[in-house]
Amino acid sequence: MSSGLVVALSGGVGGAKLALGLSHVVLPQDLLIVANTGDDFEHLGLSISPDIDTLTYALAGLDNTEQGWGRRDETWSFMDTIGALGGETWFRLGDRDLALHIERTRRLGAGETLSQITTDIGRRLGVGPRILPMSDDRVRTRVLSDGGWLDFQDYFVHQQCRPVVRELAFTGAADARPQPDVIAALKGGTVRAVVICPSNPFISIEPILAMPGLRAAIAGCGAPVVAVSPIVGGRAVKGPTAKMLQELGLPVTSAAVAKRYGDLLSGYVVDQADSQGVQAKLHVTPTLMTTLDDKRTLARAVLAFADSLK
Amino acid sequence: MSSGLVVALSGGVGGAKLALGLSHVVLPQDLLIVANTGDDFEHLGLSISPDIDTLTYALAGLDNTEQGWGRRDETWSFMDTIGALGGETWFRLGDRDLALHIERTRRLGAGETLSQITTDIGRRLGVGPRILPMSDDRVRTRVLSDGGWLDFQDYFVHQQCRPVVRELAFTGAADARPQPDVIAALKGGTVRAVVICPSNPFISIEPILAMPGLRAAIAGCGAPVVAVSPIVGGRAVKGPTAKMLQELGLPVTSAAVAKRYGDLLSGYVVDQADSQGVQAKLHVTPTLMTTLDDKRTLARAVLAFADSLK
Repeated sequence: MSSGLVVALSGGVGGAKLALGLSHVVLPQDLLIVANTGDDFEHLGLSISPDIDTLTYALAGLDNTEQGWGRRDETWSFMDTIGALGGETWFRLGDRDLALHIERTRRLGAGETLSQITTDIGRRLGVGPRILPMSDDRVRTRVLSDGGWLDFQDYFVHQQCRPVVRELAFTGAADARPQPDVIAALKGGTVRAVVICPSNPFISIEPILAMPGLRAAIAGCGAPVVAVSPIVGGRAVKGPTAKMLQELGLPVTSAAVAKRYGDLLSGYVVDQADSQGVQAKLHVTPTLMTTLDDKRTLARAVLAFADSLK
Repeated sequence: MSSGLVVALSGGVGGAKLALGLSHVVLPQDLLIVANTGDDFEHLGLSISPDIDTLTYALAGLDNTEQGWGRRDETWSFMDTIGALGGETWFRLGDRDLALHIERTRRLGAGETLSQITTDIGRRLGVGPRILPMSDDRVRTRVLSDGGWLDFQDYFVHQQCRPVVRELAFTGAADARPQPDVIAALKGGTVRAVVICPSNPFISIEPILAMPGLRAAIAGCGAPVVAVSPIVGGRAVKGPTAKMLQELGLPVTSAAVAKRYGDLLSGYVVDQADSQGVQAKLHVTPTLMTTLDDKRTLARAVLAFADSLK
C-alpha cells in the first residue's frame, strides 16, 4: 500500500459511498474527508449540515441505506408531533438525527466551530478518518430558477428539485476561509492523492472549489487529482445531476462533468459506457456502488489509478 | 351553575389535576388558568416551560398519567442518542415533547410572546380553556442551599431536590409585567372565583404572586379567593412541598401553607385530617385526586364553597 494522505472532496450520498470505501482501504489517519457545507441550513431554529451528517453516519455504520439518508433504526415521533403543533414538516428529521442537530446547534451557540464539533462527534460515534467541513464560515448554495433565487433546501427538498435551474450561486464563498487543517494538509507535502468523489459537481464539489485558495492549494499539492464521475450509463445514480446538466444546457455525460473540473484533474474514473469525449487521462471501471465490496473495490481502483499518475 | 370567570393559579402536576377537574365543570370560556413560569429554563438551546406544558398536556388528554410528567405514547430515541453525542441527559425530553420545545423556541426567536404561543398550541391540541403564562417576561426561581444559589431545574431535576432549601428567590419577578389578559380579567368585574390550585406554595404559587400588581389585582377582583391545600394527611402528595416546609422551619401542615397566602384567602379547602390550626374559612373534603371523577368532584366542591363565600 502506498503511504501518504488521501484528501477526498465529497457531498452527501454518492460521495459518502466512495468515502466509506476509502475508509476501508487506507488507514484512518491517512484519510481526510472534506465535506460540502453549501447545503447547510437553519431549520426550526436548528443548524443542519446534511453532507457532514451523511458522511458521519455512513462512516459510523449508522446510515439508513434503504432510505438513502438519515439514520438507521430511526423513529419519527418528533416529526409526527410537530405537524400537529403547526410546525414545518417538509424536511424530515428523525428523532435520533435530531439529537445531532440539537447538540450541534447548542455547541455552535456556545462558540465552538463546526470543525471542532464535527471532529468530536465523529470521534464519539467511532468514525476513524477525519471529516471536516470545507469551511467554518457560512457558505450557502442558492439556485436561480424562473421564479427567482431559491435557498438550496427549498429547491432540493421542499420543491423536490422541480424548479428549472438557470444558475447557481455560493453565497459567502468568496469571503469564506477554507478549513485551515485542509489547507495545511494540502501544503504539507505528504498528500498521496486528492479524490473528487462521485458527487453532483454543481452543488457538492463546486461550492468547495469556489472558496479562494482551495483550488490553488489542490492544484499545488503535488499529488494526482482524480475525480470519479457521478454519471453511470448516461444517467445520474441519484439526485438531480442529470436534470441540472440538461437545464444548464450541457450534455448528460461524464465528459461534461469532467469539463467542470477542467485542468484540476490529473485523471478521471468512469464507468464502461461513459468514457466518450473525456479529455483527462481515463481509468474505466465499474463505478456503480451497491455493496460495501463495490465501494472498497472502487476505492482501491481509484487510488491505484492515482498512484499510477505520479 | 353560577356564571362568571374562574381564574385558577397553578403549577405543574398537582395543580393540573384540579385544573383538569375545573375544565370539566365550567364552560371553556369561563376558565382561565394562570401557569407558573418561574421554573421555565433554557436547556440544550431550547426554551422549556414545564408547568405550561404539564397543564396543556393534561387538558389535551395527552399527559402521561403513569409517569406523572410528559406525554403519553412517548418515545425516547432522541434521549438515547444525545447521550452518545456527549449531550446532557439529566432532563428527560421525549421525542414528542421535544416538538413542543423546538416549536416554542423557534416562535419565541421569531418574536412571538409566550402567551401567543401557549394559546395557539393549546388551541391546536384541542384545549378548551385558556392557559396563560403568569407573564411574558422572564422570571426564574432560584434556590439558596448550603452550597450557594442554584437554578431551579438544577435543584429540582438534576439534584432531585436533595439540597436543603434555605431561601427562594424569583429573579426578575419585581420587574415582570403580569400577563395583561390576566390582569384585565381580574379587573373586569366578572370573576366568579380565584382558585389557588394544590401546588407547591413556594415554587409554584409564590412566583406568580411575587409580580407587582398581581396580588393586589386578585385581592381587588371582588370574587372569593379559595386555595386547595397540597397537604393531604400531613404529607405532600408529590414533590418537595413537605421537605421544603421542614427545611424552611415550618410545620408540614395545611395551616402552614395557608399562612403563606395570608389574608389573600377567602376560604381554604383541606382534607379531613388537615384542618388543624387553619385561620381561613374552611371547607373539609377529600382532596386526593386519583381518578378523573375525583378531580371533577373536588372542582365542583371548590366552586360551590367559593360561591358560598360571596
